[in-house]
Amino acid sequence: MIEAVPNVSEGRDRGTIDRIASAVSSVPAVRLLHVGSDEDHNRTVLTYVSDRSDALAQATLALYDAAVGSIDLRRHSGEHPRVGAVDVCPFVPLAGSTMADCVALAREVGREIAARFEIPVYLYEEAATRPERRELPRIRSGQFEGFTKKIARPEWKPDFGPDRVHPSAGVTVVGARVLLIAFNVQLATDRLDLAEAIARSARGVSGGLRFVRALPIRLAHRGIVQVSMNLLDYRRTPIHRAFNLVREEAARWGVEILSSEIVGLVPAEALWDAAAWHLRLENFSPSIILETRLGAQNQESER
Amino acid sequence: MIEAVPNVSEGRDRGTIDRIASAVSSVPAVRLLHVGSDEDHNRTVLTYVSDRSDALAQATLALYDAAVGSIDLRRHSGEHPRVGAVDVCPFVPLAGSTMADCVALAREVGREIAARFEIPVYLYEEAATRPERRELPRIRSGQFEGFTKKIARPEWKPDFGPDRVHPSAGVTVVGARVLLIAFNVQLATDRLDLAEAIARSARGVSGGLRFVRALPIRLAHRGIVQVSMNLLDYRRTPIHRAFNLVREEAARWGVEILSSEIVGLVPAEALWDAAAWHLRLENFSPSIILETRLGAQNQESER
Repeated sequence: MIEAVPNVSEGRDRGTIDRIASAVSSVPAVRLLHVGSDEDHNRTVLTYVSDRSDALAQATLALYDAAVGSIDLRRHSGEHPRVGAVDVCPFVPLAGSTMADCVALAREVGREIAARFEIPVYLYEEAATRPERRELPRIRSGQFEGFTKKIARPEWKPDFGPDRVHPSAGVTVVGARVLLIAFNVQLATDRLDLAEAIARSARGVSGGLRFVRALPIRLAHRGIVQVSMNLLDYRRTPIHRAFNLVREEAARWGVEILSSEIVGLVPAEALWDAAAWHLRLENFSPSIILETRLGAQNQESER
Repeated sequence: MIEAVPNVSEGRDRGTIDRIASAVSSVPAVRLLHVGSDEDHNRTVLTYVSDRSDALAQATLALYDAAVGSIDLRRHSGEHPRVGAVDVCPFVPLAGSTMADCVALAREVGREIAARFEIPVYLYEEAATRPERRELPRIRSGQFEGFTKKIARPEWKPDFGPDRVHPSAGVTVVGARVLLIAFNVQLATDRLDLAEAIARSARGVSGGLRFVRALPIRLAHRGIVQVSMNLLDYRRTPIHRAFNLVREEAARWGVEILSSEIVGLVPAEALWDAAAWHLRLENFSPSIILETRLGAQNQESER
């Protein structure tokens, strides 16, 4: 089974979001698991799975078709950085598939997107063709508005498609990666400079936690700011450690944490680990969970 | 499906524990999910399930047979209060069964235990025949050593079986109840009086949290003490609230929490709730868990 988690640059217009979701769910053999939209980010994250690569490719191309037909980046504003109508589309190996399967799927889908929609495609993470294209933030820097210049530089020639930005749909980033957790923490302040300082202390690249990416985001309609994080390896940098660091850094400015939120879906074990940390459980393993035991075949008692 | 969670008064002798566990797991159609022993408590908790009442009855009678044949309460010492070789045996309704099913099963098994082993049986919780027998601590007060006198009083005439204590196996308590969480918190002190003070502040009956039972327990081999709790309704008195209260009360005595532990099994949602509390998740529901979504039928996308 492979999971696709495209991020689409529309989080406000219900009609457009529904059209894009329907494009995915109308493909048989694909299960749309979750659709999460944010008005301030002006962005929607869709999560769908299938155990058939061809069905995932078909659903993803249908999603691009719907998004490219409905979203015009020239008129798009939102707090989250973006380069395309479909900004980024990662494929994630779940049980029964490998990263190699996802890389192959990303390249096949990327090639087809370029051919069908004339959109420049960049491959990232495990599907990247050059080391400097592994990390999404480096591809995305300059955003849609800066990409007309960026794409002209030889080192930013797209992996597939034309050497010029699609007028309304921009460019797109397709790839393969391990499961990540998108996790936002809301601060009880409207000061974006504090969210920026806290994000900087949290993110790995600037000396914070190794597998954390973090951005400050203004949530205009709530009158507060947010530290928006990607947890790239939740087993090694767990969700509670990221939360605790943000809370600690916020306290240094006299700022409280209002709340946090998961964007998209979260693996069960990541929350169990956070509970075990808070409760200081000394004997925690998934095997003490009733549902895990009920789900497992118990050889011993079924002889 | 019904779950049985008998507590047996042996937590040290591996041979006896294995014999008792085998008696359960040898019954077809019964799945032994978990066996947890504690040396200081000198007690073992077994968890098994079946969707057939007759199989659960058969496994439970086999467990009594093995325990009564191996455990002599006259030579039993342990920190946990107990009245019988099989101290208590609750039946718990899981998906697809009702409390009425469990009450009927408890009464049937109780009658059979009395007839087959000549052990006095008390029915408790939902299976209780009188209000004053609902709560386990009231039945158990006086323990094995005090029961010879207690059983002679008319109000403590057993529900089934003889009016005198079984010489080696004592009495037993059988019943039906909702799922509870057995949760112990270890304190960084050897002072039992502090564990008692903290347990008193935590337990519902003395003014603490409504659905908490709590006992102070000495863990001799670790040189520390423990607050041993039953969380009788984890949706209304969640695990993190019990933990936080114990931590707060311990701090008042300058005592740290070393760790906690789950005895037996815990429902997944109880740990998710603790994670959501610690992380201040504003949008938590089981539907944001990847595995929940994968497990659920997604009507929308499977049309």
